[in-house]
Amino acid sequence: MIHGGDVYSIYEAHPSMTDRLVDFSANISPLGMPEAIKTAAVRALSEAECYPDPKARSLTDAIIAFLLRTYGTALDRSCVVCGNGAADVIYRLVLALRPKRALLCAPTFAEYEEALALTDTALEFYSCAHPSLAVKDDICQAIHPGLDMMFLCNPNNPTGLITDAGLLQKLIQTARANGVFLVVDECFLDFTGQERTCSVIPKLSQNKHIFVLKSFTKMYAMAGLRLGYGLCTDAALMNRMRQCGQPWPVSVTASAAGEAALTLKAHPEKVRRLVARERRYLTDAFARLGIRFFDSQANYILLQIKKPPDFYEQMLARGIVVRRCGNYRNLDDTFYRVAVRSHEHNRRLIKALMEVTGSR
Amino acid sequence: MIHGGDVYSIYEAHPSMTDRLVDFSANISPLGMPEAIKTAAVRALSEAECYPDPKARSLTDAIIAFLLRTYGTALDRSCVVCGNGAADVIYRLVLALRPKRALLCAPTFAEYEEALALTDTALEFYSCAHPSLAVKDDICQAIHPGLDMMFLCNPNNPTGLITDAGLLQKLIQTARANGVFLVVDECFLDFTGQERTCSVIPKLSQNKHIFVLKSFTKMYAMAGLRLGYGLCTDAALMNRMRQCGQPWPVSVTASAAGEAALTLKAHPEKVRRLVARERRYLTDAFARLGIRFFDSQANYILLQIKKPPDFYEQMLARGIVVRRCGNYRNLDDTFYRVAVRSHEHNRRLIKALMEVTGSR
Repeated sequence: MIHGGDVYSIYEAHPSMTDRLVDFSANISPLGMPEAIKTAAVRALSEAECYPDPKARSLTDAIIAFLLRTYGTALDRSCVVCGNGAADVIYRLVLALRPKRALLCAPTFAEYEEALALTDTALEFYSCAHPSLAVKDDICQAIHPGLDMMFLCNPNNPTGLITDAGLLQKLIQTARANGVFLVVDECFLDFTGQERTCSVIPKLSQNKHIFVLKSFTKMYAMAGLRLGYGLCTDAALMNRMRQCGQPWPVSVTASAAGEAALTLKAHPEKVRRLVARERRYLTDAFARLGIRFFDSQANYILLQIKKPPDFYEQMLARGIVVRRCGNYRNLDDTFYRVAVRSHEHNRRLIKALMEVTGSR
Repeated sequence: MIHGGDVYSIYEAHPSMTDRLVDFSANISPLGMPEAIKTAAVRALSEAECYPDPKARSLTDAIIAFLLRTYGTALDRSCVVCGNGAADVIYRLVLALRPKRALLCAPTFAEYEEALALTDTALEFYSCAHPSLAVKDDICQAIHPGLDMMFLCNPNNPTGLITDAGLLQKLIQTARANGVFLVVDECFLDFTGQERTCSVIPKLSQNKHIFVLKSFTKMYAMAGLRLGYGLCTDAALMNRMRQCGQPWPVSVTASAAGEAALTLKAHPEKVRRLVARERRYLTDAFARLGIRFFDSQANYILLQIKKPPDFYEQMLARGIVVRRCGNYRNLDDTFYRVAVRSHEHNRRLIKALMEVTGSR
């Protein structure tokens, strides 16, 4: 399993488990999909006979209004590219840039590296040093003129650790001075409550060399509808991106769902509060049980559990799917990621974890 | 407008026309989306909080059963790649093959050339000779060992002309002898009533060098949901295709809609009969009015109309959108394509056409 959320492979291997699993491997809002989004998607089905708008104009305008309201940032349509999930935007960006050499953090979200394999891009890595695994100031020393692009996931995945505004500013300047295109993935930033201080969206207008990735998947629990977008003020690049993939990436249901999501002004704060409370519930329990965890600001938590070595299988036997992190660079098989879910689910997680690790 | 179906651009330029246009530029079944598909898509929304199955296993199994039932062809899961529309499959295929040199018909569907631009593929063209614009036996002479791949759209777009089983067999052999990968786009073949004699799907098992493209968009009127697939028995190639784009191309709604579509055994025949009757209604009228048309077997018809030169705009003023074909290779601004729609709409088309061309 390269990504979280693939319970289908588990069901295939263990048919008796079908519909009995609680999935902590995908990082979806515990409040689920708001009813207004579902209603909008259902309504949109009556237009699903027609092709979607290849430019997703109506959705794009809703995104622009949201960015102005949230960050005070005024962008025009040329600065927004919507895709079939944020992953689609990553692939289009990589194909549009065709970087010869790129810098990635280790560990970070696997999709950047997978997309860069398509363009045969040579990779360099900034190793987030153990034990903190934080992205620190020395990342600036890893930036040099031989690089074409770099990815920064903020908060990082799977650690949930945030890169603060000061370091971000330094990164933007260092990237610019070295002619490096900087991609900041803010797909989970809205969960941290620090999006107003740590988002680089307000910097976009002055910095054509930065790109922000955003997703609807997590905050609005619409992973199955596939919708994400990218922001950048390099209009020529954005135009190339539109051509680096099929012309209708956003389905009419995804578009309608996304527009409805952006009207829900109170929803993100409600999710943030619930996630903060439940994250605290989980980390308090981990601390009490002596389980090593990282100080996540997001809706997922990275754990290190050395015993039992078959922790994953034993949790699965109790109906709980966690994300094994052995395939992340700079991590090994003792690392696992769990999503912050509803209180009831989180209690089940802790109960199973106590049984499996023998902690109490 | 590169593709048909982009009424959004027209609405943007002429806001007063919003929702008043009849769109003959997109080739969608006149019966619309069957209720069972809509119901399945609505039901699937309750699972849209989760990521879709990256391997689209349930849909793939339904496709395999459909192919066995329809063509007597037994394929396994490794031979099917589903995408966010057939266009997504085209891009993935081109990225997986990275052909140095490819052969296209002129005219044909624009998407092949757009995808091949991504891989900097050198293009050669087989010109469908005027006045028939048919793909003829001499296409085999255009195939040589310097080519890596070729696309054949059957029936061709925008002509609606079919390539028969004899020539297809010759093409398959010539392509194999020259080491050329042959893509046959059968997205409109189900409209012709000749899918059982002209489909190359039964040849897949014996020919790893052929690839078939199929779409749900047209027959099931679900263009807005985005679903298509590709078939090929070169499992290594199919595996590379899965990695040539984001991991979750098929949304949960598209997957459920596709599965529901494949259970509707009587639907395609119903659509075929209606389309055949209405195509005849339209071509009889064109013949009577002295309008030049091509002998389409599909649910669209190519016309040549020299006067008035502003035919498109005059039709638009009457609320009718036709597809201008001046951007197809080997055609010019006097060519237009119209979809075969419901009888009421087709009557409106003929009425407007009589007014605009002054024929009677």
